[in-house]
Order: sequence, then C-alpha cells, then structure tokens
Amino acid sequence: MLLYRFDPKNAKMNNNPIGIFDSGIGGLTVVKEIIRVLPDENIVYLGDTARVPYGTRSKEVITKFALELVNFLLKREVKFLVVACNTISATCLNEIIKVSPVPVLGVVDPTIEFAVGMTKNKKVGVIGTAGTINSRAYDQRILQGNAKIKVSSVACPLFVPIAEEGLADHQVARLIATDYLKDLRNNGIDTLILACTHYPLMRKIIEETMGSEVVLIDSAKPTAKKLKQVLKENNLLSKKKNPKYEFYVTDAPERVLKVASRFFGNVLNGYLKKITLPIL
Amino acid sequence: MLLYRFDPKNAKMNNNPIGIFDSGIGGLTVVKEIIRVLPDENIVYLGDTARVPYGTRSKEVITKFALELVNFLLKREVKFLVVACNTISATCLNEIIKVSPVPVLGVVDPTIEFAVGMTKNKKVGVIGTAGTINSRAYDQRILQGNAKIKVSSVACPLFVPIAEEGLADHQVARLIATDYLKDLRNNGIDTLILACTHYPLMRKIIEETMGSEVVLIDSAKPTAKKLKQVLKENNLLSKKKNPKYEFYVTDAPERVLKVASRFFGNVLNGYLKKITLPIL
Repeated sequence: MLLYRFDPKNAKMNNNPIGIFDSGIGGLTVVKEIIRVLPDENIVYLGDTARVPYGTRSKEVITKFALELVNFLLKREVKFLVVACNTISATCLNEIIKVSPVPVLGVVDPTIEFAVGMTKNKKVGVIGTAGTINSRAYDQRILQGNAKIKVSSVACPLFVPIAEEGLADHQVARLIATDYLKDLRNNGIDTLILACTHYPLMRKIIEETMGSEVVLIDSAKPTAKKLKQVLKENNLLSKKKNPKYEFYVTDAPERVLKVASRFFGNVLNGYLKKITLPIL
Repeated sequence: MLLYRFDPKNAKMNNNPIGIFDSGIGGLTVVKEIIRVLPDENIVYLGDTARVPYGTRSKEVITKFALELVNFLLKREVKFLVVACNTISATCLNEIIKVSPVPVLGVVDPTIEFAVGMTKNKKVGVIGTAGTINSRAYDQRILQGNAKIKVSSVACPLFVPIAEEGLADHQVARLIATDYLKDLRNNGIDTLILACTHYPLMRKIIEETMGSEVVLIDSAKPTAKKLKQVLKENNLLSKKKNPKYEFYVTDAPERVLKVASRFFGNVLNGYLKKITLPIL
C-alpha cells in the first residue's frame, strides 16, 4: 500500500516545513498532536475555510479543491505533505500523490493500521462525513489488510455542524448520536474509528452512546506517530530547534477563530494569516 | 430604498431569461413561486453547490462568490437578476447592483415590505443564517421603513443542515427549534420572517414551536409578487409562451438531486446542467 512517495532530490530539505492541510480547521486536531510528538518541526497549515465543508461534495470537486491546496503548500517548499482531512484522504489521496514531488501522508492508512491492531472481536465501525463513508475508502482498505474483519460504516452528517456550533453537550447531540449509532451498537463492534477531524469534539457523547467497552480511535495520534516514523526512516527530521508555525485560511470571519478555539485553544492568535482565493 | 436599477438600453430584452441565483439549491423555493406567478418567463438558475453554504462566511468571500455567479448569468444575457438567497441579499446586494447592467431584485426588501404589512402589534422576528443575522440587514431596513417596529433576530445555523438531511420531522428539529426560538417567543412577536430559503422546509416545526397565532413569512411569495410588479412597470414581461428553463449548479453529487427533490419535486430532471468552477 503506497502511503507516501519519497523523492531523493528532497533529501536535503530537513529544515523545510511540513505542509498540513484540511478542508477547514478540524485538521488542527492533527496539528496539535504533530506538534506534541515532533516539537522541532516547522509547520505550514492551510485550511480552506472559504469552501468548507468538503464532505457533501463530489469526488471531482473535492479533488480540484484539494489540488489547489497542495499547490499552495508546494510553493512554500514543504518537505512533506500531511492530508489532515478524512474526506480528502478518503477521496483523492492517489491524485495528490501523483502530482506531489514530496512524500504525502493521509490520515486514513495510519488510522486503519491502529484500529486493526486494537480490535479483538474483529468488528470495526467507521463514522465520518457522507463523502468519506461513500468513498468506501475505510471499508476497502481495512478488508485489504485483513479480509476477516467485519466493517460497519455510517455517515453522521450533523456531527460537524453540531461540533462547530458548540452544541456537543446539547441534548440534540445525544439524540442524533443515538440515531446514527444504532446499527453500530447492534453490530457489536469493539472498535470505532472517528473518521472526521471534528468528531473528537463529540467524543463524550459518542462514548456515552456506544458504551465504555467500545474503543474510540481518531486520526490525530496514529497520523502523528506514523509521520514521525516516516520522517525518521527517510532522514527527514528537522535538525533545528525553535520551529516556526504559519496558519493560513482562505476565509477568516470571526467565527473561524471562535470555532478554532474549540479545537485548539488560542494557539492561532498571532500566527493566523488569511489568503485570497483562487489559490492556484 | 433602491430595490433595483433599470437600464433603458435593456428595454428590448423582454424575451430574455430572468437570472436567478443562490448559494445552493434553496433558491428553488423562490423559483417555484416565480414560475407560478410568471408562467411565461424564461429562467436561468445558478446554484453554487460546490461552495455552499455561504451563511458562515465573511462578507468579503460572500461578495466575491456572488459576483462570480452574477457574471455567469450576465453572460447568458438575462434581462433581470433575482438574488434568491437571503445571505447574499443581506450581505452584498449593493455590490451586485453596482456592477449589474440589468435590474436586480433581492429577497430582503420584498419580504420586509410584506412582513411590515402583516404585523399588528409591531413586533417582528427574523430568523436566518449567521451571515444574514450578523449583517443586520433585516433589522436596519425594517427600522428604516418604520422606526416604531420592534425587531428581534436570531441565527438558527442548524436549521439548514437539518433541512438538507431530511430531518425536519425528527425530534432534533423540535429540540433545537425550542432553543433557538425561545427569546422570540418571550418577546411576543406576531410575525416571523423565515429569512433563509431552507426554512420553509422547517415550517411545521417552527409553527408548532411559535404557536399558531404567529404569522410565518418566507421570501418566495413576496419576491415573486414584487418581481411581477417590477417587470410589468418596466415593460419587461415576456411576450412569448412556452418558456425555457435552465438549471445550473457548480457541483452535482447525487446528494444535490436528492436534496433538490425535497424542495422542488423532480422538476430539475432533464433541465439540470453542471458547470465547472471557476465560473468567471
């Protein structure tokens, strides 16, 4: 399985930044974990807040938008690309790998690897946006790795707006979670992949609904861990201290900062830059 | 109050189409009513399904996207522009009027005119997207027309995804409506403007929550009525029968047709065309 592509001509790029991108600001959950495990790495983040969400769009449009984001980051001479968005990773990772001269890591494969290692009864659930679930990327790759695993997947489209509106503790969150997760509960899964960067904000309600015996796995930790391993194997780790962070968004209404603070505290303050579409 | 701008050089355009646009497909509720009251008019509709929703974006981005839609329709030689989107009408109608060589009608002014004529106790409520409510366009224009009217406005951001997901009859709709509309109930309004094209889909739950004594007003009827009046006054009514309809969207995943059928039955079938961004 091709997780990334390494180009030897980039071997001298150790101190160049890692480019991380997402349809919006949910990918900051992945950034946070990457900063924790790789504290010396420079990072450039790009969130397409002017066109978020991607989860309801066609593969064609998701691919077009994603390649525009990639292009923006490549111009900033990143040494590595992290696709911190489940919808993009599930929909068009191969298209990104095809055009990128630097290695690419999506969130799907590391997350699956981690989940497959966790399940004991070989029954794994996946929840995500309509785009991610309809792509069947998770189902297919889990089965490619282990055909004996039974995968149940469900789209939970209201989870993103509920999380963004700060309603994760509201009774509506509980009610819709009960509905969305009913089949997964009946299927007796022991491991549930939160295949959307927003869903960690819904963790409490998902935990309550699924019961404490089900292990919840989100993309942040597995992706950061895999990134560290791949950078190390390819001798691409940063050799400097005191890293620089740059956060770019394609639209920055007040709401973006408010929602970002739900994910990430106030860390954007001072780093955030707005860029104008088109970004090609 | 400048509702539209008429350019005499367009006076011979009677049989050209009316251009109607929206951030997505919610504007079809307005199209449906326009077809009902103006059955001889040719129509070109454009919905920006690749970048919907606009309601959470900044004024800058909404204006940029809206002007791209305008440009697409002007190239199709429309004789008139109808902004069938509350967020766009509330945010950047003046910017559109500035660039358009043909008259422009937004949904805000006709809807306000209608609501102001309906209220008896002079207490009017407005619900819409965050973009529409934060623009304060409704509040300000109501007060400009009649400073004695007391306006209460509330953003209801979850109503759009709930309507699009077909959950208007679900218990989550009732629960979040109770929350959102609490202040409006306490304020004793007798008239409520549904300032978002999606909200007619939520009419039943809004009615139940507000009580039957509150009159609900959406944009479709007032806008279609005003459009007919303006076309007539300016001698711009179509002089042919058997009109043509063209519906364009910037992205057309299966979901768009499904959601469109909630608004509009199957009328898109056979008319729908997909165009590719960028549309400038």
